[in-house]
Amino acid sequence: MGKAMPHGGGGAAPPRAPEGDGLETVAELAQLRARIAAWRRAGLRIGFVATMGALHEGHLSLVRKAHALADRVVVSIFLNPLQFAPSEDFASYPRDEAGDCAKLRAVGAHLVYLPSAEQMYPEGFATRVAVGGLSEGLCGRTRPQFFSGVATVVLKLFNQVRPDVSVFGEKDFQQLKVIERMVRDLDLDIEIVGAPIVRERDGLAMSSRNAYLSASERAIAPELYRTIRELAQEIAHGAAIDEAIGAGRKRLSALGFVVDYLEVRDSESLRPLTQLGSGEARVFVAATLGRTRLIDNVAIVRESQ
Amino acid sequence: MGKAMPHGGGGAAPPRAPEGDGLETVAELAQLRARIAAWRRAGLRIGFVATMGALHEGHLSLVRKAHALADRVVVSIFLNPLQFAPSEDFASYPRDEAGDCAKLRAVGAHLVYLPSAEQMYPEGFATRVAVGGLSEGLCGRTRPQFFSGVATVVLKLFNQVRPDVSVFGEKDFQQLKVIERMVRDLDLDIEIVGAPIVRERDGLAMSSRNAYLSASERAIAPELYRTIRELAQEIAHGAAIDEAIGAGRKRLSALGFVVDYLEVRDSESLRPLTQLGSGEARVFVAATLGRTRLIDNVAIVRESQ
Repeated sequence: MGKAMPHGGGGAAPPRAPEGDGLETVAELAQLRARIAAWRRAGLRIGFVATMGALHEGHLSLVRKAHALADRVVVSIFLNPLQFAPSEDFASYPRDEAGDCAKLRAVGAHLVYLPSAEQMYPEGFATRVAVGGLSEGLCGRTRPQFFSGVATVVLKLFNQVRPDVSVFGEKDFQQLKVIERMVRDLDLDIEIVGAPIVRERDGLAMSSRNAYLSASERAIAPELYRTIRELAQEIAHGAAIDEAIGAGRKRLSALGFVVDYLEVRDSESLRPLTQLGSGEARVFVAATLGRTRLIDNVAIVRESQ
Repeated sequence: MGKAMPHGGGGAAPPRAPEGDGLETVAELAQLRARIAAWRRAGLRIGFVATMGALHEGHLSLVRKAHALADRVVVSIFLNPLQFAPSEDFASYPRDEAGDCAKLRAVGAHLVYLPSAEQMYPEGFATRVAVGGLSEGLCGRTRPQFFSGVATVVLKLFNQVRPDVSVFGEKDFQQLKVIERMVRDLDLDIEIVGAPIVRERDGLAMSSRNAYLSASERAIAPELYRTIRELAQEIAHGAAIDEAIGAGRKRLSALGFVVDYLEVRDSESLRPLTQLGSGEARVFVAATLGRTRLIDNVAIVRESQ
C-alpha cells in the first residue's frame, strides 16, 4: 500500500503540519478497509468527512474539526450521481482532484478515498435509503430524489469507512438533520457533528457552486445572506414571520434571485413555523441566480437567548 | 450482566450441548453491544440469525448452521411490525418466548436478543431501506411494504449485532435474495448464507404460520409442495413452463388453495422465466388455505445438471 502523492506539494506552506506520513490516497475499498482496520487495531479513533470534491474553506473547516475529534481523518471525494436529477449539474460540477488533495494534505487529513462510480454503484445496484419527514420540504420539494441519494451514498461511505465520528457542514442544514436521523434510526454507532457555515468576507456562504457565478452575479450573491440575516433579526425582535418572509421574497426577487424557498423552520424537526416556539428556529433559503442555485440558512437568535 | 435463564431447562436432552455459559438473554441495545464487543475483543467470530420467534426446526437449522460457521451465535426474536400490513396477522402471530429460548438453548445459541418495539422504532423513526427489482413481484406484489419492512429491520439488526456471518432460510427465498443484494449494495461486511428448507415428514415446509391450519387444512397443505415438486420435475424434463404452471394452478385451486402466485423464476435475478436459461431456475408458490398464507419454492434440477 504505497503512498501515492498526487501533488508535488509546491505552493503555500501548509497551515498545519500533516501528522505521520502525510496524505495517502486510496481508490479501492479493500485497500481502504485494510488501512482503517490497521488504525483500529492500533486503538485510533477514526474521523470522516464526505465530500464531492471542489474543496473550499468550508470543507477544510470540517476536516479540521474531524482532526480535533479523532486520531485519523479520512476524507472521501465522490461526485455522487445518485443525488443529481438528470436536469441538474452533475456533468458540469467542478472537479479538481489534484488541487483537492493538496488542500487536504495542507490541513493534515490522513487518507483520501476516491472510489469510482463503478465501485460505488456496480451493475445491479438496487438499494435506496429514504428518510421520511425531514427529507420533505425545503430542498426535498424541488429535488425529490436528492436526500435519498445523499442518505444512500453516506450510508455506503459510513459502512466502508466505519468512522467513530463524522462532520457535516451546517450550510447543508437539512442534509445534516437527515444524516443524524438516519444514523439514529439505523443504529449506526457513529457520532455526527455539525460545523458552522464558513463565509466569504462579504458574507456569501462558501460553496463549490459559487464558481458558476459571473462577476456581476458574484457581486449580488452576498445579498442572499444579508437578506436572511436581517430577516432573522426582525423576527427575533418580534416581526410576524409571514410578513417578514413576504418582504424578504420581494427583496430577493428585486435583486434578480429566483426564490425556490424562503422559510422559517424549527432547527430540530424542520417543521415550518408561523411563529417562534420554544426551540431554535432558522431561516432557510434557496434561490437561483442566473444558472446557479444557492442555499443558505441562519439561526434566529432572540434577545432572551 | 447477569445470566437470565427464562426456562428451567426441563424437557428433552439438548441435541447439542451449549458451549460456555449457555444462553444469555438481552433486551437492551447497550447490553447487546457490550457483550458482542467483548467477544470481538476475544477474537471470536459472530454468527447471527434473525427471527420473529415461534421457532421451529427450520429456525433451529439456521442456528445450527450459524454455530458451524461462527464461534458465538446471536439470535434475535423480534416480531417486526414494519413488515406487516394492517390487514395482516401481526396481532395473532404466534408468540412463545419461553419456549423459543428453551429451543435455542438446546441447540447451543449463545445470546438471544429480544428488543422492544419502542427500542427498535422510537418516536420520530423515519428511515426506510428499499431494494428495487428483487422486491417486486412474487411476495412483493401482494405485500408491497413487506420487503422494505424486512430490509429495514434486518439492516438495523445487522448494525446492532455487527455479525461476521448471518444465516437466512431458503423458504423465504426472495427475502434471502433481497438481503444479499442489500448487503452488497450497502457495503456491509457480512457474509450471508442460505440454508435449505426444512420440511415436515409429509413435505410441508416448516413455518410458524402452519400453526394456523385446521386439521383438515393441515391434511391438504403438503399438496402445495407436492405440486411444485412435480411441476419442477415436469419442467426439468422439458414441459413448457406456461402449460405446467397452468395445470399446477388448476390442481391447487381444485384442492382448495387460493393461489397468490405460481411462477418459475431465475434463482439469482428472480426474473420470471418463460423457458429455462443457463442459470438455476425455481418454482415459487404462495397460496392461501383457509386463513393461512403458505409459501414454498423448489429448484428445477435438469438431467444434465
